[in-house]
Amino acid sequence: MFSLGVDFGTNSVRALIVRCSDGAEAGACVVDYPSGDQGVLLDADDHQVARQNPGDYLFGLERSVQGALAAARDKPGFHAARVVGVGVDTTGSSPIPVDRRNRPLAFDPAFKDDLNAQCWLWKDHTSWREAKAITELAAQRRPQFIAKCGGTYSSEWWWAKIWHCLAVAPDVFAAAYSWVELADWIPAVLAGVTDPRLVKRGVCAAGHKALYADDWGGLPDKAFLAMLDPRLADLRDRLYDKAYDADEPAGSLSPPWAAKLGLPAGVPIAIGEFDVHYGAIGCGIREGALVKVIGTSTCDCAVVSTDKTVEDIPGICGIVKGAILPGFYGIEAGQSAVGDIFKWWVEGVCGGDPALHARLSAEAAKSRPGQSGLLALDWNNGNRTILVDQLLTGLLVGQTLYTTSAEIYRALIEATAFGARVIIERIETYGVRIDRVVCTGGIAEKNPLLMQIYADVTGRTMHVAASSQTCALGSAIAAAVLAGAHASFTAAQAAMTGVRPDHYDPNPADRKVYNELYSLYRELHDSFGGLNKSADLSRLMKRLIEVKYAQRG
Amino acid sequence: MFSLGVDFGTNSVRALIVRCSDGAEAGACVVDYPSGDQGVLLDADDHQVARQNPGDYLFGLERSVQGALAAARDKPGFHAARVVGVGVDTTGSSPIPVDRRNRPLAFDPAFKDDLNAQCWLWKDHTSWREAKAITELAAQRRPQFIAKCGGTYSSEWWWAKIWHCLAVAPDVFAAAYSWVELADWIPAVLAGVTDPRLVKRGVCAAGHKALYADDWGGLPDKAFLAMLDPRLADLRDRLYDKAYDADEPAGSLSPPWAAKLGLPAGVPIAIGEFDVHYGAIGCGIREGALVKVIGTSTCDCAVVSTDKTVEDIPGICGIVKGAILPGFYGIEAGQSAVGDIFKWWVEGVCGGDPALHARLSAEAAKSRPGQSGLLALDWNNGNRTILVDQLLTGLLVGQTLYTTSAEIYRALIEATAFGARVIIERIETYGVRIDRVVCTGGIAEKNPLLMQIYADVTGRTMHVAASSQTCALGSAIAAAVLAGAHASFTAAQAAMTGVRPDHYDPNPADRKVYNELYSLYRELHDSFGGLNKSADLSRLMKRLIEVKYAQRG
Repeated sequence: MFSLGVDFGTNSVRALIVRCSDGAEAGACVVDYPSGDQGVLLDADDHQVARQNPGDYLFGLERSVQGALAAARDKPGFHAARVVGVGVDTTGSSPIPVDRRNRPLAFDPAFKDDLNAQCWLWKDHTSWREAKAITELAAQRRPQFIAKCGGTYSSEWWWAKIWHCLAVAPDVFAAAYSWVELADWIPAVLAGVTDPRLVKRGVCAAGHKALYADDWGGLPDKAFLAMLDPRLADLRDRLYDKAYDADEPAGSLSPPWAAKLGLPAGVPIAIGEFDVHYGAIGCGIREGALVKVIGTSTCDCAVVSTDKTVEDIPGICGIVKGAILPGFYGIEAGQSAVGDIFKWWVEGVCGGDPALHARLSAEAAKSRPGQSGLLALDWNNGNRTILVDQLLTGLLVGQTLYTTSAEIYRALIEATAFGARVIIERIETYGVRIDRVVCTGGIAEKNPLLMQIYADVTGRTMHVAASSQTCALGSAIAAAVLAGAHASFTAAQAAMTGVRPDHYDPNPADRKVYNELYSLYRELHDSFGGLNKSADLSRLMKRLIEVKYAQRG
Repeated sequence: MFSLGVDFGTNSVRALIVRCSDGAEAGACVVDYPSGDQGVLLDADDHQVARQNPGDYLFGLERSVQGALAAARDKPGFHAARVVGVGVDTTGSSPIPVDRRNRPLAFDPAFKDDLNAQCWLWKDHTSWREAKAITELAAQRRPQFIAKCGGTYSSEWWWAKIWHCLAVAPDVFAAAYSWVELADWIPAVLAGVTDPRLVKRGVCAAGHKALYADDWGGLPDKAFLAMLDPRLADLRDRLYDKAYDADEPAGSLSPPWAAKLGLPAGVPIAIGEFDVHYGAIGCGIREGALVKVIGTSTCDCAVVSTDKTVEDIPGICGIVKGAILPGFYGIEAGQSAVGDIFKWWVEGVCGGDPALHARLSAEAAKSRPGQSGLLALDWNNGNRTILVDQLLTGLLVGQTLYTTSAEIYRALIEATAFGARVIIERIETYGVRIDRVVCTGGIAEKNPLLMQIYADVTGRTMHVAASSQTCALGSAIAAAVLAGAHASFTAAQAAMTGVRPDHYDPNPADRKVYNELYSLYRELHDSFGGLNKSADLSRLMKRLIEVKYAQRG
């Protein structure tokens, strides 16, 4: 038996066919989105805009699945008829305005070129004013709504985006019968669902981004939404009452799409989840493990059995029952930019190419922790955890007349490592033990300097997931479990996931230096992040110089 | 009549012959120092080391004067015999260890290759521990010593360097019969003085760098020096008792040097002053005027009549009677790095050349104040005024994933402008009115973007001195006055100096934005500089973002 996972990323879609018995890859195919700048629709006048053409998803879906099937064709034992289920993961919160028949407004010629009628990609930050207003209103009137998402509603999320659309493009809002998360929309399309109210919504997106919880009867009540705008209260009737975890199918493959893709009609389609959540499953997530998906940004996932009680954790993106694994609370945290910061430095500022990445990385690897005297904050794209504040920016301190670009490159890597440590400490402070860290994503696989720094800064061994396609693998695992190929997620993960033999252990001497630098990072973090409003930073530059001279010997 | 000014810079020496009646240039010549990296002897293991080969000074002196004479040869009315005096200015504090015959130890084959036996160039920062200890001891035992130099003794200064030499190279210290400032040594060489005790020392170097004042009987008392090290107390006997202002000649041109240079023997040699002090004279300094010498670093000079009382100004490099103009207190302040910061960014980090300087400058000129959201501190080489602390470093805040290298370049220019404003405000706060700003130096002449930003940030019209060689011109003016070509410095300055017709007036709209950014700069300045030990920086990044969006419209 085989199962198919389809992973909709920021720039491309990837289809992966795996063998259910052991997770071995039978075939894979990546298709880039044809529109915009690497698939992202931008606005030259506003860097915060990030949209996506929903047509790209269908284009990529069809071609990537066909490509994966073609690649798998000659594999022993493989036949398309032996594909028992389909799983889908996507970015999010990426809401799409749709009409009564579940078609994106962007498919209507009248809205084809309207940026506001496209999919509002996760990293669109235009809605920060709305996010702030939602946070403030919830804090006053419904504190429970934001208690589980760290106390702050983000501009990357569902309601902020829809409300912002209402403000800047009332015609789009008025024309949209409903809104559907990309993670829910793809499975619905595959299942042939043509009424937005019948789309099976996943609790992952609903709980993390749309303030959904069974505790308060689903989505926020209409009275609350009416305080934002009465039209949002009206919209609630055209959304959904119930969201589901991965034990529930989103539907079964419709004959037209089965024919289009070359797959058996009627096979189950797993509920849609966000890429990192299915990615966490593909990394073998379990209680005590932290999965880090390290890419342009980083997402951190942990799970705790629903038999236990999980405290609210301030500044964490969300704690949602069933969001990752059924039967567990899913805990999500993250850093708004990681790989994006290195790319900004090397390509944006230094004007280099991937070869410069390699050169700076090699040069940075030669120096010792603290030797540059530099310290940075990793906030070029705001701070997702634990400050939950998009209106923060990067900071670099310690530069002299001799500071090199490689030293700054390393300081930026270290900054993201310090940010990673803040997250681990915050989660553990609230009673969730982390005894294992599994990393996945291109950076985890290809940047040993970064991985070693992460081990040294956090004091944890960094494992790397065996699969290079953990998100698609996790989707395929969900499909396999749904199809009955394994009795449970635990059994499926044991059979289908693993870590690589090579791992990164903390170096005690470097760890000591990084402990000192981390305390300075926290001084910057807490003062610029607003946790400490009477900061004494008078010694910070001097302490960096002391570390520098000590490390230079 | 003509006079000769010789200006010993960091990388080269410049000789300038001017007509005494109107300051018109008859001939000039620049000769680069042959040793080290652009004339500076470095230590690969310690970035703080900056020394200079004293032989380079004599090499450059001879060739530059000969070159200037050759250039002037055909000018109407010029003849070498009509040169009536010689003035000399140099960097400082740049002390040279010398033997009993006033010869640099570096001329002794035993010390030829010993970095510690060379001239300790002004920008050598190895002596910061000693500077700190001198500051602390003076604060306890002789507060008057440091009250006039802003309350802090600097690692760039005389006693710190000599004491550091004693610590790291006791053999050099023991072999040195005495130490002579470069500014005093060159006139003494020209005058044929072969006993260090007979070298006429200038009050400019003595008062600003060696804690000299008539009020307490010259140099620091032996009891004080003995508390540092008894050998420093012993050295005092081999230094000097009296230092002089520019009304006093340093000597007259010795026949051997007259022959070597091709000048009339016996013409007066002006007392040596630091480059910026004679540069201030070459810019037409008077009460109410601030002269800014903007180069790799910036020096600011002001004068106040000795008929008046000048308060101690905390954090100012020095207030020394007669240091610039006889009959006036000379006030000196400065920024440790200005052009050096831009050079570091463009060449050191971005790996560019002068063409990139031009490109970044053109790109930076297109943006409006605050539009980048960036803010920087100009401390890559420490802070000379008002914090007097070498153990400070650069800082950049506000960067996003879209920040460009041109935006950072502009932020660095703005940072130096904010630093310039801090100095003006500090001087005025203590009762010294500034009603005119005259700038000189390569950056003042060649970087209109910087000059406009300085005008907008400080709210002052920026004038540019007419001469491109104000330091050498000031030296020539001192020689002309000494030779009787003018009745006074005031008369000489009126005849021989001026400003260019083009100047930079503040733009009211930009000034408003910069007032806001300056308040944020002061928040960073005061918190990292230690003036505010309970800082609330929680709004700083947000205020930068607000300015950015307001300026982007």
